[in-house]
Amino acid sequence: MTRIDDLPVRDELRGKSPYGAPQLDVPVRLNTNENPYPLPEPLVERIAERVREAARNLNRYPDRDAVELRTELARYLTRTAKYPVAVENVWAANGSNEVIQQLLQTFGGPGRTAIGFEPSYSMHGLIARGTGTGWISGPRSADFTIDTETAAKAIAENQPDVVFITSPNNPTGTAVPTETVIALYDAAQAAKPSMVVLDEAYIEFSHGDSLLSLLEGRPHLVVSRTMSKAFGAAGLRLGYLAADPAVVDAVQLVRLPYHLSAVTQATALAALEHTDTLLGYVAQLKHERDRVVRELWEMGYEVTASDANFVQFGRFEGEGAAHAMWQRILDRGVLVRDNGVPGWLRVTAGTPEENDAFLAAVRELKKEQEQSA
Amino acid sequence: MTRIDDLPVRDELRGKSPYGAPQLDVPVRLNTNENPYPLPEPLVERIAERVREAARNLNRYPDRDAVELRTELARYLTRTAKYPVAVENVWAANGSNEVIQQLLQTFGGPGRTAIGFEPSYSMHGLIARGTGTGWISGPRSADFTIDTETAAKAIAENQPDVVFITSPNNPTGTAVPTETVIALYDAAQAAKPSMVVLDEAYIEFSHGDSLLSLLEGRPHLVVSRTMSKAFGAAGLRLGYLAADPAVVDAVQLVRLPYHLSAVTQATALAALEHTDTLLGYVAQLKHERDRVVRELWEMGYEVTASDANFVQFGRFEGEGAAHAMWQRILDRGVLVRDNGVPGWLRVTAGTPEENDAFLAAVRELKKEQEQSA
Repeated sequence: MTRIDDLPVRDELRGKSPYGAPQLDVPVRLNTNENPYPLPEPLVERIAERVREAARNLNRYPDRDAVELRTELARYLTRTAKYPVAVENVWAANGSNEVIQQLLQTFGGPGRTAIGFEPSYSMHGLIARGTGTGWISGPRSADFTIDTETAAKAIAENQPDVVFITSPNNPTGTAVPTETVIALYDAAQAAKPSMVVLDEAYIEFSHGDSLLSLLEGRPHLVVSRTMSKAFGAAGLRLGYLAADPAVVDAVQLVRLPYHLSAVTQATALAALEHTDTLLGYVAQLKHERDRVVRELWEMGYEVTASDANFVQFGRFEGEGAAHAMWQRILDRGVLVRDNGVPGWLRVTAGTPEENDAFLAAVRELKKEQEQSA
Repeated sequence: MTRIDDLPVRDELRGKSPYGAPQLDVPVRLNTNENPYPLPEPLVERIAERVREAARNLNRYPDRDAVELRTELARYLTRTAKYPVAVENVWAANGSNEVIQQLLQTFGGPGRTAIGFEPSYSMHGLIARGTGTGWISGPRSADFTIDTETAAKAIAENQPDVVFITSPNNPTGTAVPTETVIALYDAAQAAKPSMVVLDEAYIEFSHGDSLLSLLEGRPHLVVSRTMSKAFGAAGLRLGYLAADPAVVDAVQLVRLPYHLSAVTQATALAALEHTDTLLGYVAQLKHERDRVVRELWEMGYEVTASDANFVQFGRFEGEGAAHAMWQRILDRGVLVRDNGVPGWLRVTAGTPEENDAFLAAVRELKKEQEQSA
């Protein structure tokens, strides 16, 4: 049998495994920050309707520039982030991962580097590797915030071509203050100039606002977004960015032509018609997220302040302790995420019932632990 | 206003334009090798039905490994190419362009090279550039066939990491004989060993059979396919490959997680249920393609023998003559393709009515030309 290493794969891929959380079939899945609320039935019907219409023309290539979709995404951003953007400012792709890949193909790549402040969204580093971009693991404080001065120094020293700032941060849930984003943008301009990608995948769940308005006068800033979380459409794979129109032009030099299928465009457009309903679920989830934080805290767990639809909790001291805890929670039918941050686990805010199941499991485990101590 | 060149884009992107044929709204569009037949209405309904079902679970990430879809694609290949492949042999992505991008990220990339025998599908070279893979333009004979000895010599000399063979070739329509593919595979193994990608995007339109059975005993061979042409689903963006299971494992090291949306998977599965109907359209198109070849020939045009759903015709002598002819045909409401092959244009086989319109236009132009001569 031929194995991967018998093939002439690139050296840096040897011995690696594919990225991805285990897809396990358990009663309560709180591991991939999915929105627990299925799309409402009227939206399901509208998707079927718009896809039916698109399917009648499926023998033709889709609109390569996705103009209608980008127009509606711009309208959504303008309305919710209170800063006017237009179709020329917006680009869309198959998930924010593809957006990031296109940005790294354009502004990173061989002989160039990107920095992120870790722990953060691990795909930033993995997509860097996949595009031949050197990866620099930037510093984050022990409380999982970014220390502006330390981070700016790392930018000045490493002179990266692309700077990733994730706010709210994944897997910690930490929001990044406006002044830090501005300071790091300025540091990145002094260094090269470099592109700064502000990954706002979870911004709709934040206590604060989107920093979209920072685009004003900052042509090297890119805000990336997704419909996977707030729109409850992880299965749709629709990510997008807002930036100076020149950035939107530039990524078109590397995007695969017709990268966004007609069915994806039709489905996303249907979902955007139902924005208000979907944002109603977001409000419920924020409420539940705050409850999970509070109850974990009351049980005596450490909890990282969260502006996302998930909560980082711990601490589990000792080699492998977090993973052992992950397994014990799984044994109780609840799947959370071990992101490899030593001592911590991450749980997605689910429905009230799912959160109850999770909280009951960890309460029980806490008691067992105390009895055995 | 900021321009692309004001941004810190990679040097090799400066001054470039995005790839893509003009998307013009003209009565007869025969420029992008689309299938002219809309999907039959029962299939459109089945797509709406399967997408409705998928939409009810859209808040969850899609099956990352697309197991059901890959199983059905394997079944289709086994049945039509008469060589047994299973789910482990098949991988799918958003168009064959993404399949090729994943292959180049795995087996090409910085410090490595790929070769194609040009003129051929220009995305091979463009995706090489996008993935940092060096591109080698390999030789093709004046009649647009591949001379086995010359091509094998180019492989031996250049020692590429990836060899592209497109059969039937785009934009010329030329099929590559089995013995040439075998000889080039052997040359590629002697050189490195290297991966050989046999791009069979148009194989269903060929007078001959798929060379899928060459996979037997050739772990470095990859056959790439698409649903854009024979399945009449260009708008769906579904490409796939068949290869040794190790190749399928290897591309998963670079694929973006959850790259294939739930709506794409659902739509493709619906289309695969209607394979026989869709292959009926293919038979009609082959018949029409042969008629276009014959009538162009009878008019006195030169025509390249075609095994695809398009025809390369000429010759238009002199600087810019092919493009001038392209414009004159467009002025008559028919959009064909100027692929930049000096002296030649490419026309997609459309419906009988579309082909009549095209043939009438070029017949008229031929007459005008003869009268003015």
